[in-house]
Amino acid sequence: MTNPKQTTDLLSRRRFLQTAGVAAGATVGALALPRAADAAAAPMPKKWDVTTDVLVVGTGFAGLAAAIEARDAKADVIVIDKMPVPGGNSAINGGDFGAAGTQMQKALGIEDSPELMLKDMMKAGAYLNHPELARTVAEQSAAALEWSQTYVGAQFDRVNFHGGHSVKRAHQTVQRSGAGLVTKQLEKARALGAKIELRTKLVRLVADKDGRIVGAEVRRGYKFPDEASGTPAFIKARKAVVLASGGFSNDVKLRQMYDPRLTDQFTSTNQPGATGEAIMAACMAGAMDLQMDWIQLGPWTSPDEKGFGYVPQFVERVVGYGLMVDPATGKRFFKESGNRKERADAIILLGHPALILADSTNTTKMVDPGQLKGALDNGSLRKFDTIEELAKAYNMPVDVFVEQVKRWNTYVEQKKDPELDCLIFKDAVPNVTPPFYAARLWPRVHHTMGGLAINKDAQVIGFDLKPIVGLYAAGEATGGVHGAVRLGSCAMADCVVFGRIAGKNAAKQAAWG
Amino acid sequence: MTNPKQTTDLLSRRRFLQTAGVAAGATVGALALPRAADAAAAPMPKKWDVTTDVLVVGTGFAGLAAAIEARDAKADVIVIDKMPVPGGNSAINGGDFGAAGTQMQKALGIEDSPELMLKDMMKAGAYLNHPELARTVAEQSAAALEWSQTYVGAQFDRVNFHGGHSVKRAHQTVQRSGAGLVTKQLEKARALGAKIELRTKLVRLVADKDGRIVGAEVRRGYKFPDEASGTPAFIKARKAVVLASGGFSNDVKLRQMYDPRLTDQFTSTNQPGATGEAIMAACMAGAMDLQMDWIQLGPWTSPDEKGFGYVPQFVERVVGYGLMVDPATGKRFFKESGNRKERADAIILLGHPALILADSTNTTKMVDPGQLKGALDNGSLRKFDTIEELAKAYNMPVDVFVEQVKRWNTYVEQKKDPELDCLIFKDAVPNVTPPFYAARLWPRVHHTMGGLAINKDAQVIGFDLKPIVGLYAAGEATGGVHGAVRLGSCAMADCVVFGRIAGKNAAKQAAWG
Repeated sequence: MTNPKQTTDLLSRRRFLQTAGVAAGATVGALALPRAADAAAAPMPKKWDVTTDVLVVGTGFAGLAAAIEARDAKADVIVIDKMPVPGGNSAINGGDFGAAGTQMQKALGIEDSPELMLKDMMKAGAYLNHPELARTVAEQSAAALEWSQTYVGAQFDRVNFHGGHSVKRAHQTVQRSGAGLVTKQLEKARALGAKIELRTKLVRLVADKDGRIVGAEVRRGYKFPDEASGTPAFIKARKAVVLASGGFSNDVKLRQMYDPRLTDQFTSTNQPGATGEAIMAACMAGAMDLQMDWIQLGPWTSPDEKGFGYVPQFVERVVGYGLMVDPATGKRFFKESGNRKERADAIILLGHPALILADSTNTTKMVDPGQLKGALDNGSLRKFDTIEELAKAYNMPVDVFVEQVKRWNTYVEQKKDPELDCLIFKDAVPNVTPPFYAARLWPRVHHTMGGLAINKDAQVIGFDLKPIVGLYAAGEATGGVHGAVRLGSCAMADCVVFGRIAGKNAAKQAAWG
Repeated sequence: MTNPKQTTDLLSRRRFLQTAGVAAGATVGALALPRAADAAAAPMPKKWDVTTDVLVVGTGFAGLAAAIEARDAKADVIVIDKMPVPGGNSAINGGDFGAAGTQMQKALGIEDSPELMLKDMMKAGAYLNHPELARTVAEQSAAALEWSQTYVGAQFDRVNFHGGHSVKRAHQTVQRSGAGLVTKQLEKARALGAKIELRTKLVRLVADKDGRIVGAEVRRGYKFPDEASGTPAFIKARKAVVLASGGFSNDVKLRQMYDPRLTDQFTSTNQPGATGEAIMAACMAGAMDLQMDWIQLGPWTSPDEKGFGYVPQFVERVVGYGLMVDPATGKRFFKESGNRKERADAIILLGHPALILADSTNTTKMVDPGQLKGALDNGSLRKFDTIEELAKAYNMPVDVFVEQVKRWNTYVEQKKDPELDCLIFKDAVPNVTPPFYAARLWPRVHHTMGGLAINKDAQVIGFDLKPIVGLYAAGEATGGVHGAVRLGSCAMADCVVFGRIAGKNAAKQAAWG
């Protein structure tokens, strides 16, 4: 059923997407079927083409975590993905797994706890988070990381900081990409006997007369983004469907329904298939959506490269070491360790790209050599022999900027920023050693916090506020875990924690036929 | 069909609600039917009990505007309302109708324009407003006001200011209540032959196999909040259904899905029936909801009275004349003319009620005598012979507070607040004349900005981003007009403008059978 040729090297794919950009998704008419066919859940078909216990939609962190758990619970599992390559956004994310109270943190002397992680998540989320969902992620994050390491076989070798967290808790894969985990998950799911079907798109969920989800109408051999491609088929899910189909950052029309500002003038960091029609299919089957208007802009993308790019890996690593300035004034304007929304809003308010910089010592210590090379090679990161040269290259007032860097360095020495309250790390050193690295920053649509309502058992909640029997969801397709703002590294934790819960519970669901 | 006894005096009703409070709504299980019955639109019934052209749900500003327009276009109209009295929140609101470029404004020398109103709405809405919807309201506001005056017969006699607006544009009814308009609308709708059915609750919309809305399943003789009360019936809508059922401020479970902070510890200003199940019924029939997490807290309610109360009429009238202080410090803490969200957030941040005050001259000039008496009589507003006495009554540091009032009075003299940038009106005078009036303020849930997605023709948009044939919506049941924050007085404009559009277009819809 699975064509081995379709499982391309995810790391190659990531590089491809970084080079090629993902703008194609912006023009996709993701919801183009005629109204009559879309208006509700599909009726029970006369004939099912395939039968399984658990149907998982999506091959990212969440979908594959669900598939592995469901197989471990002896359920038959089919995983579908509409794209020609597996992994979704998980294959191109930064590979930072937020987890609290882990062995790796302890070895590094980092004091952390699920309570502190929950507090950080709730604060960033403007307390719109569903507390029981955020708590589930925080409390199970360390176990989910350990599962990813010891059972799935992914390797993590460092613990990074992300803005908005109180401590370093972003455990990064050795590959510096989510592909480091999702590739291993894919291998594991296959080894356990899960069937992975690529180019198979969810069209509608099938509900029985009581509203129980019993399967799905799909299109097989689908060629994204051609909505007319492929052949219709019905997959019967005896136990449950798990929706782990990701967000809608690349669906311009859909995201504009919730936040009309996000026109096609804003590009996205996401893979082209992040178009959200699976969330809409669930809504048409009675699933409640929530907080869809909280759409995150990544503050760390560069206008000088496409897609996610390399610059975010520079930015997030030098936060707390280097400084961010407004090139129009040469001065700092917002605390570098602020959360994503705060920083993106501050940059948009400037009306032009910001500039971030760090010297050789801080950069070499913090930034992965491969990422550094990638950014320098594509021109999104530049290096300079002197601070003055750097100032001139970006048309900054040289004196003001030099003075600003000096002042920042005194803050680094005293490990305290009395001006903007940036968190400065113990091992940060004054930025005095050439070369000096700098990148321009302009936000991109990065993550959609909203999605399907779920409870802590990953059951999808309907518009009648009751769980929909036979329907589970996990990851970016869901809403409520992160509230108004998702903190960096919390997506991997969310996906693996709730993917596992969804898979376990889907396998436990009483079969209907 | 209509029992004349059910049409009680709306002004009496308003007084009743002000006295009795509306906390009852908080415990209502508004979505209590079994899952199977609620999971989708209702199937086509074997027999329709009643047939009409246009079925309107809701007897507030929006529903009755739709009914009047649909009758004027010769359509048969039935208007249903689940409550025993008509008018919904419209009957208890403050009666302020935001409109730009009106004759009344011109007569008072107020320079205004739809462009300026749109700008104010978009700024307050954090630019989450659907621009074409906000523009429609702003551009048609003056015509809607004139229609309300000359055609419907409501009387407006003053133009008030509300926080967040650039100018005074809130045209207030002589009754100082929305009842002044909605009572006249009810008379007009009846005179034109619309049938008004109270105690009739929408249960589900009925859709045909193509998703077209063809009618509704209702419960007649429904006794709010008893979900088992009443008798099921099917109303056939040959042309269209217009949903004008209001918001969900009083549905604690529902509002917590979108904003989990809003527990039953927060009361509401709304009438008890503001429970949102009609919005959910539309979602179950494929209608898209949006921005449901933007739930407005009114910054001008008093903890010393229940429901909407009298104090808001004092507060909104003395903004720009009197001052608001933190009683813990005796100092001002936020600009009095800020928008609702800004002020509510600032008060919640204090952690205790704020205090607002004005002297006799400013109060007498601005506040309606009946409202003033009501507030004094129920104890929510108190009067004092001296500023010192007032300070002592609220345990404020007397010297600090006296100094603060003096400073405020210098700002009033110079018509400029260099400290917090409060807008001060030309006719404001220093607060020196006893008695001095003061009220405590603590926010209540007031308005739900989110709701059903509509286009500028008031057609409801489905989860497939296409209009749903036969379904229109207007007023608080819709989302997108106000974005993140609705400005005071913009609800009446929104309801009348979009209610009229919905009614006209519903009447024009081709009949299905």
